[in-house]
Amino acid sequence: MSAPLSIGIDLGGTKLLGVVVDEAGQVIAESLVATPCGPAAIVDAVAGLVADLGGAAAIGVGAPGLVERDGVLRTAPNLPGVHDLDLRAALTDRYPELVVRIDNDATCAAWGEYQAGAAVGASDAVLVTLGTGIGGGLVIGGRLARGYRGFAGEVGHMMVDPNGPPCPCGQRGCWERYASGSALARLGREAAPARVVELAGGDVEAVRGEHVTAAAAEGDDEAVAVVDRFCWWLARGLANLVDILDPEVVVLGGGLIEAQELILAPSRTHLATLVLGGPTRPPPPILPATLGERAGAIGAALLAQAPQRSV
Amino acid sequence: MSAPLSIGIDLGGTKLLGVVVDEAGQVIAESLVATPCGPAAIVDAVAGLVADLGGAAAIGVGAPGLVERDGVLRTAPNLPGVHDLDLRAALTDRYPELVVRIDNDATCAAWGEYQAGAAVGASDAVLVTLGTGIGGGLVIGGRLARGYRGFAGEVGHMMVDPNGPPCPCGQRGCWERYASGSALARLGREAAPARVVELAGGDVEAVRGEHVTAAAAEGDDEAVAVVDRFCWWLARGLANLVDILDPEVVVLGGGLIEAQELILAPSRTHLATLVLGGPTRPPPPILPATLGERAGAIGAALLAQAPQRSV
Repeated sequence: MSAPLSIGIDLGGTKLLGVVVDEAGQVIAESLVATPCGPAAIVDAVAGLVADLGGAAAIGVGAPGLVERDGVLRTAPNLPGVHDLDLRAALTDRYPELVVRIDNDATCAAWGEYQAGAAVGASDAVLVTLGTGIGGGLVIGGRLARGYRGFAGEVGHMMVDPNGPPCPCGQRGCWERYASGSALARLGREAAPARVVELAGGDVEAVRGEHVTAAAAEGDDEAVAVVDRFCWWLARGLANLVDILDPEVVVLGGGLIEAQELILAPSRTHLATLVLGGPTRPPPPILPATLGERAGAIGAALLAQAPQRSV
Repeated sequence: MSAPLSIGIDLGGTKLLGVVVDEAGQVIAESLVATPCGPAAIVDAVAGLVADLGGAAAIGVGAPGLVERDGVLRTAPNLPGVHDLDLRAALTDRYPELVVRIDNDATCAAWGEYQAGAAVGASDAVLVTLGTGIGGGLVIGGRLARGYRGFAGEVGHMMVDPNGPPCPCGQRGCWERYASGSALARLGREAAPARVVELAGGDVEAVRGEHVTAAAAEGDDEAVAVVDRFCWWLARGLANLVDILDPEVVVLGGGLIEAQELILAPSRTHLATLVLGGPTRPPPPILPATLGERAGAIGAALLAQAPQRSV
């Protein structure tokens, strides 16, 4: 008898990525569609992907927002009109014979990296995704930590500066205002090194994170200083998480990490000076994620396959 | 056959509290001695307490510092001369027939409150002790989270203000500089309400936390404002932990919590405005600890009884 396959779907603000994976997390098939607008159309699109991919025993969906343990997507800032959407009930109606599991997208990505990516074999892992914001997922003692309601892992809204810039969440000084992809752009616009502005076509308002990393990669001193400041903030939030959770590894994902060593090396240096315990306590390694954009879909599929591995 | 008893010892900077508990965490016997100076004398004192209390199958010790999973007390700022002390080996030498388990003191206190105190029955709990600093312990999915090396739960050194006051740990702006018992004293000295200074004998440098809470309990407006500021900081750090871990309950312990509703009520109000998810996400309840000064010793004993309940 062959091992059961499962379908994983990463429901994003702009696209829906579906995969079929085997027990080991290997991708057997893949499909991509644009995310439609509104809850009914989204349910149809998810169900359509399941039909396209077919032949699985379980469906997992990673959704961008606060997902209750019962599979209700409570709030989803990047999906206009979607709130209190019972995605599990909607999919179970269409596919009553399949196991259906809904989780937060970053939680799914963390599980993907833990089961089939950079964190394989670790006992405790913190996985952080740097994008427009910062997403997170936690593995504690080999199990995915979901929290009481299912909302664990919202590390991006950890407050790190009471006088910091406002965050769309309604608070001030959230970590994602300092250490996400969009935060690097903000730091770049504030410092506005000449070379960075030049790469942005001469318009300081057009500066994005990749202009900063490109100038830093060329060796521009001011751009290197901006990257270093960014890495200090990244490491500072990671040090908080290390002090709280003492993980074996920290895994960083998201588009920014494509800049790799330019970000990873100074972040490691800062982390070593910031964790509690000083010289008697070497910090955990910071590893780049390895599953790329598929991490969430792969993790969702693996969670649906073996739900008992999460708590 | 009667249930096995175990001994728990809370190794503090000034005193050693030993208890004998049954399976339910009920205290059968208790003994208290002053903490001597130096590692050899401390081992003798712990071993002496075990001999005094006698008749148990397991010994648990909660120690104030970074405790490795193998039972080595790596650093202990409040025990002069103690570092890299292999407390487990030392006790196993003296009592080879007993199970010996060493953990961080706040981790033990958290387990005590979870097994026999305020957090009984919760799936996920964050336990925070407010004293000179802030200690913490985490229960995730019904299991005590110790972290990869055993250092999890150091929530007091979560950085919450990059421009904050220096901390003895070497960093700046740690949460315990804002929300511990000593932090309330600092906020009281900085604001120096007339009534608070009067209660401190007219010397602003003599202001302690209890002067602030006493003046606030009398209704002094300025003291109430200091307490409210303190509670905002307390709630802000708790909101970070709630965003990261999504616990079912938050339990607060430590001497300050004897001020009870004066601290708890405004902290609950602030927490409701600070957690991610706004009105769709009521915050977890903040409960006062119920085991008092025995929490660490009781938790240590229960951990030694059933080590499989931690990860």
